[in-house]
Amino acid sequence: MADTIFSRIIRGEIPSHKVHEDARVFAFLDIGPLSRGHTLVVPKEAAVTLDQLSEESAAAVGRVLPRVCRAVLAATGATAYNLLQNNGALAHQAVMHVHFHIIPRYEQEDAAGLSIRWKPGTLDSGLGRELAEKIAAAMA
Amino acid sequence: MADTIFSRIIRGEIPSHKVHEDARVFAFLDIGPLSRGHTLVVPKEAAVTLDQLSEESAAAVGRVLPRVCRAVLAATGATAYNLLQNNGALAHQAVMHVHFHIIPRYEQEDAAGLSIRWKPGTLDSGLGRELAEKIAAAMA
Repeated sequence: MADTIFSRIIRGEIPSHKVHEDARVFAFLDIGPLSRGHTLVVPKEAAVTLDQLSEESAAAVGRVLPRVCRAVLAATGATAYNLLQNNGALAHQAVMHVHFHIIPRYEQEDAAGLSIRWKPGTLDSGLGRELAEKIAAAMA
Repeated sequence: MADTIFSRIIRGEIPSHKVHEDARVFAFLDIGPLSRGHTLVVPKEAAVTLDQLSEESAAAVGRVLPRVCRAVLAATGATAYNLLQNNGALAHQAVMHVHFHIIPRYEQEDAAGLSIRWKPGTLDSGLGRELAEKIAAAMA
């Protein structure tokens, strides 16, 4: 895959406001924050999308996420937050290197943070069974 | 914490369209899907928010996510997707048990999927340094 700005940040070629680094994970402040404390958690492994990431890197990111979230809450005073990870340009992915957004929400700042519209459908029971069986089969 | 519908689904007291289960993780179709194949990946551990989840459960969810994502893509034909995890009612959390949404996007279905509005600010360099130091300190 092509080198992205995140690989250059991880290598230290581009400066960042780093908040955490370990053998597999790098975390830093988003320079285009949706709210105060908007943080990116990035595997050092340069996969484009989550489905292409190794289990080892994905587990390492998962393992450190609760600690990064606690640190963001402690440092900002936020009371709520969204974790968002976009895969593919069609799903708003802008940098083609897996990254998890931690986006704080504040009681006092109504407009800041992630703005979502939620328009749920309903799952037909028969179609649901069929689809679940297909996904479960693809897991194996 | 209070028992939620997800704990009852994990225990099998409420039926679900299950797609995966292992020692620490349970995954099933969302009955109010934003798009076809909308899947929930849930730690069996009954933590309310990600910051309260154990590292072991968080790592287990992280490890299996790439495989669940690949299976959803393979079964649905989706080409893109969002991973979303909401923490706190202020951040749209509806069920008070940690859960990760995998929400497929389709070329052919413009309206289906997660709808996001992205209004980034800019990170002041001085404030960024100060905040990153606070978060990094809180990590320790």
